[in-house]
Amino acid sequence: MGRQKEYLGKLSRFFQIRNLLLRQALAECLGTLILVMFGCGAVAQRVLSGGSHGLFLTVNFAFGFAAMLGILVCGQVSGGHLNPAVTFALCLLGRERWRKFPMYFLFQTIGAFFGSAIIFGMYYDALLLRPGSFNFTSINNTAGIFSTYPARHLTLVNGFFDQIIGTTALIVCVLAIVDPYNNPIPQGLEAFTVGFVVLVIGLSMGFNSGYAVNPARDFGPRLFTSMSGWGGAVFTARDCWFLVPIFAPFLGSILGVVIYQLMVGFHTEGEARDKKQGTVQQNLQLANVASSNNSKEATKEIY
Amino acid sequence: MGRQKEYLGKLSRFFQIRNLLLRQALAECLGTLILVMFGCGAVAQRVLSGGSHGLFLTVNFAFGFAAMLGILVCGQVSGGHLNPAVTFALCLLGRERWRKFPMYFLFQTIGAFFGSAIIFGMYYDALLLRPGSFNFTSINNTAGIFSTYPARHLTLVNGFFDQIIGTTALIVCVLAIVDPYNNPIPQGLEAFTVGFVVLVIGLSMGFNSGYAVNPARDFGPRLFTSMSGWGGAVFTARDCWFLVPIFAPFLGSILGVVIYQLMVGFHTEGEARDKKQGTVQQNLQLANVASSNNSKEATKEIY
Amino acid sequence: MGRQKEYLGKLSRFFQIRNLLLRQALAECLGTLILVMFGCGAVAQRVLSGGSHGLFLTVNFAFGFAAMLGILVCGQVSGGHLNPAVTFALCLLGRERWRKFPMYFLFQTIGAFFGSAIIFGMYYDALLLRPGSFNFTSINNTAGIFSTYPARHLTLVNGFFDQIIGTTALIVCVLAIVDPYNNPIPQGLEAFTVGFVVLVIGLSMGFNSGYAVNPARDFGPRLFTSMSGWGGAVFTARDCWFLVPIFAPFLGSILGVVIYQLMVGFHTEGEARDKKQGTVQQNLQLANVASSNNSKEATKEIY
Amino acid sequence: MGRQKEYLGKLSRFFQIRNLLLRQALAECLGTLILVMFGCGAVAQRVLSGGSHGLFLTVNFAFGFAAMLGILVCGQVSGGHLNPAVTFALCLLGRERWRKFPMYFLFQTIGAFFGSAIIFGMYYDALLLRPGSFNFTSINNTAGIFSTYPARHLTLVNGFFDQIIGTTALIVCVLAIVDPYNNPIPQGLEAFTVGFVVLVIGLSMGFNSGYAVNPARDFGPRLFTSMSGWGGAVFTARDCWFLVPIFAPFLGSILGVVIYQLMVGFHTEGEARDKKQGTVQQNLQLANVASSNNSKEATKEIY
Repeated sequence: MGRQKEYLGKLSRFFQIRNLLLRQALAECLGTLILVMFGCGAVAQRVLSGGSHGLFLTVNFAFGFAAMLGILVCGQVSGGHLNPAVTFALCLLGRERWRKFPMYFLFQTIGAFFGSAIIFGMYYDALLLRPGSFNFTSINNTAGIFSTYPARHLTLVNGFFDQIIGTTALIVCVLAIVDPYNNPIPQGLEAFTVGFVVLVIGLSMGFNSGYAVNPARDFGPRLFTSMSGWGGAVFTARDCWFLVPIFAPFLGSILGVVIYQLMVGFHTEGEARDKKQGTVQQNLQLANVASSNNSKEATKEIY
Repeated sequence: MGRQKEYLGKLSRFFQIRNLLLRQALAECLGTLILVMFGCGAVAQRVLSGGSHGLFLTVNFAFGFAAMLGILVCGQVSGGHLNPAVTFALCLLGRERWRKFPMYFLFQTIGAFFGSAIIFGMYYDALLLRPGSFNFTSINNTAGIFSTYPARHLTLVNGFFDQIIGTTALIVCVLAIVDPYNNPIPQGLEAFTVGFVVLVIGLSMGFNSGYAVNPARDFGPRLFTSMSGWGGAVFTARDCWFLVPIFAPFLGSILGVVIYQLMVGFHTEGEARDKKQGTVQQNLQLANVASSNNSKEATKEIY
Repeated sequence: MGRQKEYLGKLSRFFQIRNLLLRQALAECLGTLILVMFGCGAVAQRVLSGGSHGLFLTVNFAFGFAAMLGILVCGQVSGGHLNPAVTFALCLLGRERWRKFPMYFLFQTIGAFFGSAIIFGMYYDALLLRPGSFNFTSINNTAGIFSTYPARHLTLVNGFFDQIIGTTALIVCVLAIVDPYNNPIPQGLEAFTVGFVVLVIGLSMGFNSGYAVNPARDFGPRLFTSMSGWGGAVFTARDCWFLVPIFAPFLGSILGVVIYQLMVGFHTEGEARDKKQGTVQQNLQLANVASSNNSKEATKEIY
Repeated sequence: MGRQKEYLGKLSRFFQIRNLLLRQALAECLGTLILVMFGCGAVAQRVLSGGSHGLFLTVNFAFGFAAMLGILVCGQVSGGHLNPAVTFALCLLGRERWRKFPMYFLFQTIGAFFGSAIIFGMYYDALLLRPGSFNFTSINNTAGIFSTYPARHLTLVNGFFDQIIGTTALIVCVLAIVDPYNNPIPQGLEAFTVGFVVLVIGLSMGFNSGYAVNPARDFGPRLFTSMSGWGGAVFTARDCWFLVPIFAPFLGSILGVVIYQLMVGFHTEGEARDKKQGTVQQNLQLANVASSNNSKEATKEIY
């Protein structure tokens, strides 16, 4: 036991990464891998079993709980965004530094890439046995397991709107959950709550195009499918649909920030500011009464 | 980063609303919007996909989690009623001021209106493609996505009873959850628990007429449908059914308050009162023993 | 507002019941009413809608969450047993007084009776419209909405075993959840966890005879059905099956107590006892060293 | 009441086991029994009802909540592993002593054996009535209720990979949940979270071979089926498949430990170590300044 601990300590020291940003990016990578692995796994299970081992509901549950677990695994290290649109929203609000954004985006996409690769390996036999699995014109085409494609009825404009709305809803809820002035839930339950947000988005906004609402979750697996049998068609299919889940979520992110701040955020923030200023003024008055030369410190202490 | 924070602070100050009631009404509006958007979105997904992307169960889940998220978003600001019947019950019990009631009712209805408008936009293509979607005599009529209509088997009397019972059940559970003398759950979990209440009402009381149990959630979307293609039939259909989910919930609200108070509330309240009086009397006796002229203050301190 | 509060206070004083046992029995009554109302409501929804508005899964969810809500509503007052078998187990372990048992049993049955009556009223139209609804020989017989009947394949012996096992599983889990020496969950989450127990029992032990595992939940509604159209057949059907869910749960309760105590309970209890004695002995020794005449008090303080 | 308590105390003293390891093994046995009883019960309900009382989704829910309840029942005593692969991972990381591993493995298997025996008894009538139930060549063969068999499409290599991935995913999530340097969730919610992990693994990785990911859960019931009607075929079927869920999970366990430690664990651990050393150095400096002969104690205190 003693020797094992010693050996583990050595390993720990050897592999430890001291660069905070890299460590955070690695954690995001693992979190997004978990999100995509469980989420796409559920889609694969539903599609490949022909519905006997899955429903659209199980896919929704899987994505919801996958998001929850992804956030749990990396949340303490990197914040558990798992989604460039979330990182973008937090940067917009000045809660994360902008230089995190490209790094997170990259590693989230890498995580999503490998998450889908794992599912590809896991269901390799089932994919091979399905005739036309890798053929885009076949009805058995299974590219939709990994990244999203719009339903037949959807036009590009409505699809764009769909992705914007989905991301807006996600961002409004996430902002409420992590708002330091609103704190509606007990500490430590953020991951669970975000999981429910992802679940409910799937339950109510999943029919049009499979609720990507996440550029990394969609682009990583799409890149993987383009390299593993489906080819360039994954990008050209349905009028280059792949661009929609990359760009629309950022617009949705902006919209979500604006709506939440205008309707709730600015007011709770302002209330906290007002209270603080009230305290400062009180302190100043108190200080003035007691001794005029101490008032400066009282102000400093609060700011 | 510094300049961004400064700019955000300016924005925050510019848009901050200082009127508490208006701020609360806005928050209720956003919360109800979220409730109706996710809830009606799930109905739309079920109806428009012909069942492939939804079951009645998914609708129940969506409304449950939508209520949860709606309460989380606005709960700290406005209490997170999302339902005029809940506001009404809390006013009856003297926990909210009566002047809040009309304001909340109005903004909850506005939120529900816009929530259904978002879903209308999101599933516009799918609605258009369905022949007879906007036609009340057609079997493909989709007005039921937005507001509730009774099932074929339901008479108006039974429907009225159904809405009363549903709201009574909701109110009894909500009162137990927020009762300050009963406090059965850890602080911060109220929203989750109310979500489960809404879920279970859908699981067991949804067959007759779709469990509106909420005047705002039903009337807001109905108004929207009357303006966006379905016309006045949304009001006249099924013997003016639309009046039932507006008036029955308030009766249910009263009934719920009476049942909860008679069977649990008055007794826990009374127990707390008895204890307080016991303490006061003890204090009085103690104070009398020590010094008779201090007893007045001891009483004051407690009241 | 002032006058409303005053009036409410008067009402509260007028209706307050000071007898603790009666108050607890009333709370149990309301809790069991909620359990049966939501639970049987879900069965009704599933049966009467022909499966379009319910699955066996939704019934399981409903009973699970109904148990959760029933416990939340009355838990702080009466402990939230909702089930004579649970009351029996706690009496066996000396955690509740035996005189509570008949009182709780009676009021739980009354609550279950009225819970099923509410569902009967709510789905009256749907019941009437179904030909043969009230006829025991008809395939459309709906008595199974309210109380349990064994599946065709089940013999009475296996059915008895089924009810014993189901209750044993329930009691083992409930005892673990409320064990003061084991406390595996944060305070305030007991109701949620018991809800999950009821849910999982339904998911895995519901096929044979609908998992009553609760004499009150089964007998109350059965009495109601015998009085509201189905007649005495509800008692004589399937070789007087109605006796099984009354007597088997108490045997299961005993078995559950024995299994939990032998495998976990006695040891955690004993450990706590050992620690306490260890502390006492330490204290005794310390006291002996310091002064021999104080040792008596040290012991008294701990016992 | 007094005499009952006295009698219970005597019983408690008589049956109390003082050997910690045996007590823990017994608790693991009960926990795994609960896991397998509820889990396999849900499979039985789905298979024997022909789908009317169960879906693959209900099996997933049952295994998830069964894991949760199993952990709750035994977690405070034994840690609630319920799975030799989890025990193995914790031993690898030096968090449990290696001598626990064989003992836990044995009692977990015994628990799983009896868990499946209970379900066999509970559904005995339904099993008997199904022609070919105990016959391996029959389409009605029900051995799959108790232990896992690969789907038709699965090769042994892919099945092995499937079990490794499943266990890796389980271990990565479990390690994140119990990591003392990461602590992402409030204390007391570990069982719930692990339940969700098991649920999501079922939702997304259950199609190939039924996600055993647990040598005890698979081998115990398999042994039981070999002794109760199905015979040795349970071992020889599908190219001795039974070896895969015994050996693959341990490889997955190693892989899970490596991945979690490399991507998150070592860094959070290292950070904690760095902080501690920083404090030590600070203390040393402080001590040097104050008095050079006290520095030794300051260091000792921290290590």
